Amino acid sequence: MKKFFRHIINKFIACAGILLLIGLLGNTLMAAQGDHPRLILTKQGVANIKANLGNIPLFDASLKSVRQEVDLEMASGIEVPVPKDLAGGYTHERHKKNFFMLQQAGVLFQITGEQKYAVYVRDALLKYAKLYPTLKLHPTNRSYATGKLFWQCLNDANWLVYTSQAYDCIYDWLSPAERNLLEKDLFRPYADFLSIESPQFFNRIHNHSTWGNAAVGMIGLVMNDEVLIDRALYGIGNDAIDPDRKDNDGGFIKRPGQTRSGFFANLESPFSPDGYYTEGPYYQRYAMYPFMLFAEAIENVRPDIKIFAYKDSVLIKAVHTLLNLTDQNGEFFPLNDAQKGMSYLSRELVSAVNIAYHFGGNNPALLSIARQQGQVLLDDTGLSVARDLHSGKARPFVKRSIQLRDGSAGRQGGIGILRAGTAGDELSLVMKYTAQGLSHGHFDKLSFSLYNNGREVIQDYGLARFVNIEQKNGGGYLKENTTWAKQSVAHNTLVVNKTSHFEGDFEKGNAHHSDSYFFETGEKIQIVSAKDRHAYPGVLLHRTMAVMIDEDFANPLIIDIFRVNANREQQYDLPYYFGGQLMSTNVDYAIPKALEALGEGHGYQHLWKEAEGTIGNDHVALTWLLNDKFYSFTAAATPGDQLLFVRTGANDPEFNLRRDGGIILRKSNVKNTAFVSIIEAHGHYDPVSEIAEDAFSNIASVSLLHSDNAYTAIGFSHINGGEWVLCLANENAAKEASHQLAIKNQQYNWIGPFQLFKNHNHN
Amino acid sequence: MKKFFRHIINKFIACAGILLLIGLLGNTLMAAQGDHPRLILTKQGVANIKANLGNIPLFDASLKSVRQEVDLEMASGIEVPVPKDLAGGYTHERHKKNFFMLQQAGVLFQITGEQKYAVYVRDALLKYAKLYPTLKLHPTNRSYATGKLFWQCLNDANWLVYTSQAYDCIYDWLSPAERNLLEKDLFRPYADFLSIESPQFFNRIHNHSTWGNAAVGMIGLVMNDEVLIDRALYGIGNDAIDPDRKDNDGGFIKRPGQTRSGFFANLESPFSPDGYYTEGPYYQRYAMYPFMLFAEAIENVRPDIKIFAYKDSVLIKAVHTLLNLTDQNGEFFPLNDAQKGMSYLSRELVSAVNIAYHFGGNNPALLSIARQQGQVLLDDTGLSVARDLHSGKARPFVKRSIQLRDGSAGRQGGIGILRAGTAGDELSLVMKYTAQGLSHGHFDKLSFSLYNNGREVIQDYGLARFVNIEQKNGGGYLKENTTWAKQSVAHNTLVVNKTSHFEGDFEKGNAHHSDSYFFETGEKIQIVSAKDRHAYPGVLLHRTMAVMIDEDFANPLIIDIFRVNANREQQYDLPYYFGGQLMSTNVDYAIPKALEALGEGHGYQHLWKEAEGTIGNDHVALTWLLNDKFYSFTAAATPGDQLLFVRTGANDPEFNLRRDGGIILRKSNVKNTAFVSIIEAHGHYDPVSEIAEDAFSNIASVSLLHSDNAYTAIGFSHINGGEWVLCLANENAAKEASHQLAIKNQQYNWIGPFQLFKNHNHN
Repeated sequence: MKKFFRHIINKFIACAGILLLIGLLGNTLMAAQGDHPRLILTKQGVANIKANLGNIPLFDASLKSVRQEVDLEMASGIEVPVPKDLAGGYTHERHKKNFFMLQQAGVLFQITGEQKYAVYVRDALLKYAKLYPTLKLHPTNRSYATGKLFWQCLNDANWLVYTSQAYDCIYDWLSPAERNLLEKDLFRPYADFLSIESPQFFNRIHNHSTWGNAAVGMIGLVMNDEVLIDRALYGIGNDAIDPDRKDNDGGFIKRPGQTRSGFFANLESPFSPDGYYTEGPYYQRYAMYPFMLFAEAIENVRPDIKIFAYKDSVLIKAVHTLLNLTDQNGEFFPLNDAQKGMSYLSRELVSAVNIAYHFGGNNPALLSIARQQGQVLLDDTGLSVARDLHSGKARPFVKRSIQLRDGSAGRQGGIGILRAGTAGDELSLVMKYTAQGLSHGHFDKLSFSLYNNGREVIQDYGLARFVNIEQKNGGGYLKENTTWAKQSVAHNTLVVNKTSHFEGDFEKGNAHHSDSYFFETGEKIQIVSAKDRHAYPGVLLHRTMAVMIDEDFANPLIIDIFRVNANREQQYDLPYYFGGQLMSTNVDYAIPKALEALGEGHGYQHLWKEAEGTIGNDHVALTWLLNDKFYSFTAAATPGDQLLFVRTGANDPEFNLRRDGGIILRKSNVKNTAFVSIIEAHGHYDPVSEIAEDAFSNIASVSLLHSDNAYTAIGFSHINGGEWVLCLANENAAKEASHQLAIKNQQYNWIGPFQLFKNHNHN
Repeated sequence: MKKFFRHIINKFIACAGILLLIGLLGNTLMAAQGDHPRLILTKQGVANIKANLGNIPLFDASLKSVRQEVDLEMASGIEVPVPKDLAGGYTHERHKKNFFMLQQAGVLFQITGEQKYAVYVRDALLKYAKLYPTLKLHPTNRSYATGKLFWQCLNDANWLVYTSQAYDCIYDWLSPAERNLLEKDLFRPYADFLSIESPQFFNRIHNHSTWGNAAVGMIGLVMNDEVLIDRALYGIGNDAIDPDRKDNDGGFIKRPGQTRSGFFANLESPFSPDGYYTEGPYYQRYAMYPFMLFAEAIENVRPDIKIFAYKDSVLIKAVHTLLNLTDQNGEFFPLNDAQKGMSYLSRELVSAVNIAYHFGGNNPALLSIARQQGQVLLDDTGLSVARDLHSGKARPFVKRSIQLRDGSAGRQGGIGILRAGTAGDELSLVMKYTAQGLSHGHFDKLSFSLYNNGREVIQDYGLARFVNIEQKNGGGYLKENTTWAKQSVAHNTLVVNKTSHFEGDFEKGNAHHSDSYFFETGEKIQIVSAKDRHAYPGVLLHRTMAVMIDEDFANPLIIDIFRVNANREQQYDLPYYFGGQLMSTNVDYAIPKALEALGEGHGYQHLWKEAEGTIGNDHVALTWLLNDKFYSFTAAATPGDQLLFVRTGANDPEFNLRRDGGIILRKSNVKNTAFVSIIEAHGHYDPVSEIAEDAFSNIASVSLLHSDNAYTAIGFSHINGGEWVLCLANENAAKEASHQLAIKNQQYNWIGPFQLFKNHNHN
C-alpha cells in the first residue's frame, strides 16, 4: 500500500499541473494520497492508534494530557518573537515552548483528525518562515556556535528535531505552495545553517552534534532530501576546522585523529560496547532523545539501514545502561557535568524507553519504568508500551551490580556500580575510572560516590550551573564549574600536591583513560579495582573498593583501599564529601578564628578550612548523622597524618556554590602509601520518637597490614571481636593465579586477584 | 459493682489470714475480686475492648503491633542494669525501653488474659525492687535534679508514669506479698525520691514537675495512697528551695511569687485560656502525655474532681491548640527550645488526641488526625477513636488562621498564625509575641517564621541539641543552645546594638511579655500586629505582618513592617534566615578574603560574615531558589543601609551548629525607623524538565510612605503597575476608630487599626 501511494505521489510530483489542481481541490484530498506522516508517526501507526483509542488507559491519559496542554497554549495565540534573550529569558523560553507545542499539535492532528491543530502548526511555521530569513546570528554572541533563534546552535537544533516532526504530520495536508515556501525560506536554510554554515557545531563527536545530525537528518527524511540525509549520517567532508579551536566548556571541537563525523560516527565513538556514553549519564540522557528519535525515523523511512542493530544493538543497550546509572529514585548519578535531580522520568527517557521497548524486543522490565514515568509517546512505540502495560506484561527492572566499560571498543576504563541493600533501602557505590568524558568530563580519576536510600551519603558535587535559570549566567555554565566542579579536589579521589589530575588540562586528560583492574560480584563481597597511570606523571593510582555483606553488620560495609606509588615524596590529599552533621571524631582538631581558603587554585581556593587536626592515633574515626541515619568512617592512619574539615563557598562572589562539607585526609612527604578506610551505615534516629538506635560505629580498628608492589593486605575488626583480612594481588588479576602472603607469621593463600578472610574471635 | 468489690477488698485487708489463704489459692482468684485496673484501663473498658476485638481495624492493628513488639522484647529476656550512662547510652536506653515495654505488657495482660505478660511485668518489677534500694544518685551527676535510674529525675518520673500503669494492670493478679514488697522497696521510696527528696524537681511550674506530679499521683492512685495523691495535686507545702537556685538551662527553679505547686498549679499557670502552653509547642507536646494520662487516671478514679472541665476545659483546648501549632506535615513550629521534625504523629499526641476525643466531646476532626497517626491507645479512649473512625465519623481537621494568647489569664501576648494557600501547598506565617516561655524560652520578641508546602522558607533555628544522641553531650542541651539558639540574632527579629533582648538575661526576660496589638483575618488580608516595650529599655518595637491575597499575584504575599522608636540613636539589625541558594540581588556587595565572625557575643560570635554591601538604592531585592521554588524579598531602604550575608558555624568547635544562611538588614545611627519588606513566593523550577517558571519577582518597589507615632503607611507596586498602600494606626486599635492620613496630597480615610488600599494602574 505504502509503495502504491508513493508511486502515485511520484507521478503527481512529475506533473505540476495536476499538483496545482489538487492544491485547488483542497488539502484533504492531498493528505489522503501522501506518504506522510512517515518520520515518527506512520500511516499504519496512526491507524493502530485510532483503532485503540479509549481502550488503553496510559495512552489515553497521555493523549488527554497533551491535548489539554496544547489546547491551552493554542488559546493564547502564536508568538514568534525576534530572538534576543539567553536561556531562561522570554524569547528563549517562548521559542522552546513553541517547538514542544508544534510537535504535539502535529501529533494531535494525526490522531484526532482535527484541522485546528494542522492550522496551528502551519500558521506558526509560516511565521517562522517569515522571520527566519531576516535573522542574523543571535545577538548574545556568547557561544562557540551561536545560533539564530537561540543563543547557541544546540537549541536551534532542538527546535528542528521537534519541528520536523510537526512538519511531517501536516506535510500532506499543506498545499504544495505552502510546503515550497516553508522549505525554501525555513527548513533548507535552517538545515544548512546548522550544518555547512556551522561545522564547528555539526561536525563533532559530541552530544551537540548528535542534535545537529538528528535535526538535519530528520528534516531531510521528511523532505526526502538525500543530500541532507547523507550529511546527517556521515557529516561534512571537509570542515576546515582549526584543530586548536575549543568550545565554551574548554573542550576541543575536534578530537585528535577524528576523521569521521555525523550520526554514525557519534554512535560509534562515544558509545562503548556496553552502551555507556563517554560524557556520562546526564548528557547521555540529553543525547538519547535525538539518538533514539532519529533512529526511529531512520527505521521508519530507511529500514534497510537496520539502525537499531547497529554496533551490536548499541542504542538499545544504551537505554538499559542509562537506567542502570540511577539511584533508588531513578535519579542519574551526577557524574561529570550533571545537574542533580535529573531522572529517568525525563521526557528523553520516556521516548528512549518507549522506542527501546518497541524496537528492541519488548523487554518487559522496561514496562515497569514506563509505569513510573506515567506517560508514553503518542506514536507506535508508546502504543506498544501502554498496551502491554495494560495487559499486565510488566516485570520489575532490577538494577544489579555492573561494570560499564568506556571507550568505543570498551577499552578505556569504565564505571563500576556495586549495589546492595533491600528495595527501598538500597546502597549504591559508584566508582569512576573512565576516559575524560570529552568537554563535560571532570578531573576525577578513581573517584567514587555513595548513595543510600535514594539520598547522597558521599556526594559527587555535580556541575556548577543552574540550567535554564536566567539569573545565573543565563542558565549557562558558571565559571565555578571550571574552577571548582571539574577540579580533582571537588571529588572523592586522590589529589597530589594540591594539583588536579592532568594539571586540570583538558587536552592532557582527554588523551588518557584509567584502566579497569578487576570487577567481581559475589554474594559476600562485591569488589571493583582500577588503576590510573596518567593523571600524574610517574605516579600510579590504584583504588579498590568493596561492598561486604556479613552477618556481624546490619548493613553492607564499604571498604576503600587507595594505593599510590610514586617516584618522589609528595603530598597526598584524599577528600570525602560526607553530608550531614558531625557527631563525633577521635581526632583532636582545632578550629581557626577566621576561615581561610585551603589554597590558591585547582579548586582549593573554593574550600574553606573549617578545622584541622594532626592525627595522633593509628586510626581516624568519625561519625555523622545524615538523613536520620548514622554513618561512620574509620581509616588507618600514620601518626602525623592530617585531617581537615572543609566546606565549599570560598571565593564565590556570586553565591554560585552550595555550602557543603567534607573531610580531607592528608599525608605529606610520602612516596608510596595506601589510604585504607571503612564506611559504615549503622542505626538511625527518629525525630518523632527521639530514639537513636546504634548510634556508634561497630568498627574497632582498621589497618594496612602489608603494602608492596605485588600485594596489599588490610585488616579491620568489629567491636565484638570479629576480624577480617582482605588480600589483594596488585599486579596479576588473573582468576586462576595463586598467591601467598605472610602477615605477622600467618600465611594467607588464595587464588585470583583478591580474597577476604574472616576470623571468628567474638568477644 | 466497683463499690461492692472495694468493700470486699477492704474486708479482706482487714483479715490477714484470709488474704494469706487467697495468696495460696493463686493469683487468679485475687484478680477476679480486685478493683484494678482502674488507672487508665478500667474493668469496664477491658470488657468493652474484649467485646470488640476483631471488629475495629485500627484498634486490632494497634494491638497486633504492640503485641509483636512486646513479644519480641520478652523473647530477649529482662535486663535491669545498674544505671551508668547518659541519654543515648546503654543503661539509659535500656531502662527507657523497659518502661515502655512494661506498660504495654500490662495492657496486653488485661486485654488478652495471657499470664505470660503478667509474669513478665512482675519479674521485671521485682528486679527493679531489688535494684532500687541499692541505688544512690546516678553517677553522672550532671543535672540540677539528678535521678537514680537515669541521669535526671525527669527520666525517673517518665519511668514511673509508665510503670504505674503496668503495676495497675497486674495489681490484682499479684499476691499481697508481692504487692507489699514492690510498694515497700520500689514504688513508695521511688515516689518519695521524686517528690519530697527532690523538691527542686517536683515543686516547680515546669514540664519536669508535671511529669513528677503525674508519676507520684498515678502510683498514688494505683495504691490508693491519699498522701501521694494529695502531694501530686497540690505539691509539697514547704520546699525550702533557694529562690536563686537555677536548673541546667539557666531557668530559676521557682518563679518569683510562686506559691502553689503540684498538678493543679501546673495546669493553672503555664496554660493560657486558649490552651497555649507557655514553653511552646515542642514542650507542650512533651508535657501533654503526663497531663493527659494523669487527667485520665484522675477522671477514672476520682471523677468527682471533673478534671477535664477544669479551667474551662483547658486540657481539651490544649490538644486542639497543639494541633494548630503545626505545619502542613503536622510538624510543630520549632518555637523556643524545639527539635525539628517532632510532629503530631508522636506517641504523646496519640494519647492526647485519643483522650481529648473520648473525654472532650467526640470532636470528629480529631479522628482525621488519629487516622494519620495510624495507631490508638489500647484503652477506652483508643477504642472510642478506632470505633468511630471505622464507622466513618471522621471530618477534616482544618487549620485556620488563629491567635493563641499566652499567660495564665491570656494577657501575656501570644502567637499569631496566618495561613493561606491550598491543601498541599499551604503557606503559614507564625509570629511570636509571647512571654518568655520559662527556661526553654528564646529571646525572640516579635520574631516570625515562614513555612510553605510543609518546608521552612524563613526558619526559626530551633534548639541546639541532639535529643538522646549520646555523642552530643549525652543527648542534653549543647552550650550553643545558650550562646546561639536562644539569642535574638538567631531569630528573624530586631536586634539593637548587637545585644539580645533583655541582654539575654533570663530573669529580666521572664518578668515581661510582648503585647498583642491587633489580629484580624479577612479574605483579602490577614494581619497580626504586636508591640514590645521591654526587650530594650526605652525602645518600642512594633511589628505588623500581613498575608495578602490578590489576583495580581499567583501566591499569597507577605508584608512585614517592623517599626522601632527609641530615645537615642543606635544600630538596628533585622535578620531573615532564608534557606536556599541566592539567585540574584540588586545590592552591590563584596566578599571577604577570609571569613570572620560578625561579633563577639549575643550569638554574633557564631555568624560568619560571608558578604557585605552598602545599599545605594531605595530598595533591596533578593531572590532565592529553595525546594524548587523561587522566593523574593524586597525591602525599602535608605541609601547607606547595609546588607550582610551571614552563615552559622563560627566559634563552633564541636560542629554543633548547622551551616545555615541568612541576611541581615542593618541601619546604623538611627533613632526611629521602620523596616518594610515584601516576601513573595513565585514560580518554580523542575529539575527533570529543567524548566524555570516565573523566576523573577513581581515586586517593582516597596517604600515607607509615612511614619510617625500615630501612623505608619507603606506602599508597594507590581511590575505590571498595580499599587497598594497599607495604612496602620499605631496607637489606637479600636475597630470603630476612624482615621485619616494625607500622603503626597492624597487623603486616606479608614476605620479600624488598618486599611489596605489598591490602585489599579495596570501597564
